[in-house]
Amino acid sequence: MTITSATLHDQAKAASTASRRLATAPAEVKNAALIAIAEAIESNRQSILRANEQDLEAAKCNDIPFKLLERMTLNNSRVKDMADAARTIAALDDPIGEVLDSRDRPNGLHIEKVRVPLGVIGVIYESRPNVTIDIAILCIKSGNGVVLRGGKECILTNTVLAGIVKEAIESAGIPRDVVQFVESTDRALVKEMLEMDDVIDLMIPRGSAELVNFVGEHARMPAITGGVGVCHTYVDAQANLDDALAIVVNAKVQRPTVCNALDTVLIHQGVAREFLPSLAAEFGIHEVELRADTRAMSVLDALADGTKVVPAQEDDFGTEFLALIASVKIVDSIGDAMDHIAEYGSKHSEAIISENAEAIERFLNEVDAAVVFANTSTYFNDGAQFGLGAEVAISTNKLHARGPMGLKEITTYKWKVRGAGQIRQ
Amino acid sequence: MTITSATLHDQAKAASTASRRLATAPAEVKNAALIAIAEAIESNRQSILRANEQDLEAAKCNDIPFKLLERMTLNNSRVKDMADAARTIAALDDPIGEVLDSRDRPNGLHIEKVRVPLGVIGVIYESRPNVTIDIAILCIKSGNGVVLRGGKECILTNTVLAGIVKEAIESAGIPRDVVQFVESTDRALVKEMLEMDDVIDLMIPRGSAELVNFVGEHARMPAITGGVGVCHTYVDAQANLDDALAIVVNAKVQRPTVCNALDTVLIHQGVAREFLPSLAAEFGIHEVELRADTRAMSVLDALADGTKVVPAQEDDFGTEFLALIASVKIVDSIGDAMDHIAEYGSKHSEAIISENAEAIERFLNEVDAAVVFANTSTYFNDGAQFGLGAEVAISTNKLHARGPMGLKEITTYKWKVRGAGQIRQ
Repeated sequence: MTITSATLHDQAKAASTASRRLATAPAEVKNAALIAIAEAIESNRQSILRANEQDLEAAKCNDIPFKLLERMTLNNSRVKDMADAARTIAALDDPIGEVLDSRDRPNGLHIEKVRVPLGVIGVIYESRPNVTIDIAILCIKSGNGVVLRGGKECILTNTVLAGIVKEAIESAGIPRDVVQFVESTDRALVKEMLEMDDVIDLMIPRGSAELVNFVGEHARMPAITGGVGVCHTYVDAQANLDDALAIVVNAKVQRPTVCNALDTVLIHQGVAREFLPSLAAEFGIHEVELRADTRAMSVLDALADGTKVVPAQEDDFGTEFLALIASVKIVDSIGDAMDHIAEYGSKHSEAIISENAEAIERFLNEVDAAVVFANTSTYFNDGAQFGLGAEVAISTNKLHARGPMGLKEITTYKWKVRGAGQIRQ
Repeated sequence: MTITSATLHDQAKAASTASRRLATAPAEVKNAALIAIAEAIESNRQSILRANEQDLEAAKCNDIPFKLLERMTLNNSRVKDMADAARTIAALDDPIGEVLDSRDRPNGLHIEKVRVPLGVIGVIYESRPNVTIDIAILCIKSGNGVVLRGGKECILTNTVLAGIVKEAIESAGIPRDVVQFVESTDRALVKEMLEMDDVIDLMIPRGSAELVNFVGEHARMPAITGGVGVCHTYVDAQANLDDALAIVVNAKVQRPTVCNALDTVLIHQGVAREFLPSLAAEFGIHEVELRADTRAMSVLDALADGTKVVPAQEDDFGTEFLALIASVKIVDSIGDAMDHIAEYGSKHSEAIISENAEAIERFLNEVDAAVVFANTSTYFNDGAQFGLGAEVAISTNKLHARGPMGLKEITTYKWKVRGAGQIRQ
């Protein structure tokens, strides 16, 4: 069947209708469905891998870069990881039904604020096929319907995975329509999907900054924006410089392509002469290109040891490099550092390295970001590292959810008011 | 000074900068500022009333309807109410700094989720000048900057009130720039303000459905939509019909122009013959026009007693009447009632009248609305009635805040991570 805007809307509408039944499904039923998914993934391993091979063949014909091919590829171990993810989520507490507030009014009304699902979540994602399973199981656990729109490279793999999920949940007594997969590679459908605010309650883009920005700009429903992290680490006058070096290097080199990786180092002028040369040397070892502001250059010029240091241009501040590049700037005070972050940061992950308790508190209180760190690496901004059990996305929104989003962050609440004939004067 | 798009942006930017200082102000300082506002309102009563008289003179020249004039008018008692509001909010708990989650990770990281202000809140409101004070004090208490854009009818009153607020908070040590008032009646500025998502974090429209929809459509920052309530009350087969009559009449006639007023009565066919005639009679007494579907008409035709009953048209369902008009429909089951609500409701306030515990639970669980009621009136959807202390707006958004919004609902949170040199592998 060819997917058109109309049939896509039908799919989302079907998810919306079916999600009303899922919303009140008992935890046991939802967990049984997740276990059924795990078992179905394992018993269908061969057909999953076959579909994935076909996707890989097509991708190779289309000259897809090796890095992308690597991310697309499934094998026995990655299939097992998907099944394990379903079992892990099944073991978590059910977020739905939690009573967040409860009050008895003088007129006898009993008022409860109760956690409920959001409704239908739309997810637009790029290459990795495990996202199909991850998001489907998180939505089922949290009582939400879901419309999945995966990248075109993995269309066959994702189609097989979505089919397995639909069969498995139906066998466990949950309507198969709860999970909808957009079996099309037509890019125009993405924009159409972003206009379906009558049947999709929240849109989550998972992928490049370009995708996230496109969704943020065009979605008529609320959307989680995130994934763009211009991350600073400020090395204070009273920093332990050994810790500072280890942390800054960790935040930059461990996984430079992720959003919580370091982009800019701000160094207090009092420690710049001591810290900058060792930073430049260590970055040199890890092949990190250092882009230095004028003051930092004047310190580093004295080195002339072949480290990759170049003068920073204006746009080297406020840029998410996603590569082995970092900018560095010398500041006169913690106030200047925080002003720089307020101007150039993306409210994602910001860190201070200091042994001064007052400076730490000031930084943690005054810097406006989803996650603020003292004496540790911004690379820790991650749901699993926070012990949240599951991560849907990292939000840089200020409303609804901020930072790592777990199961609770894809729920809302409703107020239930129970009376006995009360009327209001 | 003429306000242009550029100077308005400067104002919002100033609020944003100043709000960083307010964000960490101690509760005592914020409360002292609120008390100073209360005192300044009282000591400037004459100049407030004088400005209001000038606004009223201008409004009368412009043929403003009497109802609007009444809402615009200040007097000694209304000025006192504004001062009292500031004292009431001062007495509430400070929402800022509350620790919402706290966890120690195996690697020694200490992670806290802490309630913080949102930043800058934009408020676009219509005639009533007390909104200037209400919103300013709620924002100060919650640590937020605010950009106020009031209706043109009250421009002089609002200008005086905003000036008083700015003086008073400065005297208490809070930067006066935290509160910004747009001293202009230029309507084009509203749309420009909705595009300033770099300096305004949340937009709250307070006024007509038209204003709310305009903001929802054009705001680039998140906006609270609400105020549009298509509210149903379902009279179940096992309803106490005396209660049902009192509740339905209360929800319709007590204040028909508000968003939580009843629009449509859904009646189970098993009780329609008994309930409909008494409903028609009671609505007749209160001059409510009843618009009945075909089945309800066939029951009511037998009456011919001169009550204002007319056949319903299709658009009488799903309409917010804001007047002494109600539609009525006979349904075969609670399922049909809930399907009707899912199709025509606006997710604001929905009620069931029933003595059947199972039906009540089903309705409260399955109907998707900000507030669901059993055996009481939708007119109770209100922050004060819920005991929330202060109400900013009633949200029909599903994300962030739902239903009556108090102080906590104009805050967000940040994660603070404290380490001792930890790096992530």
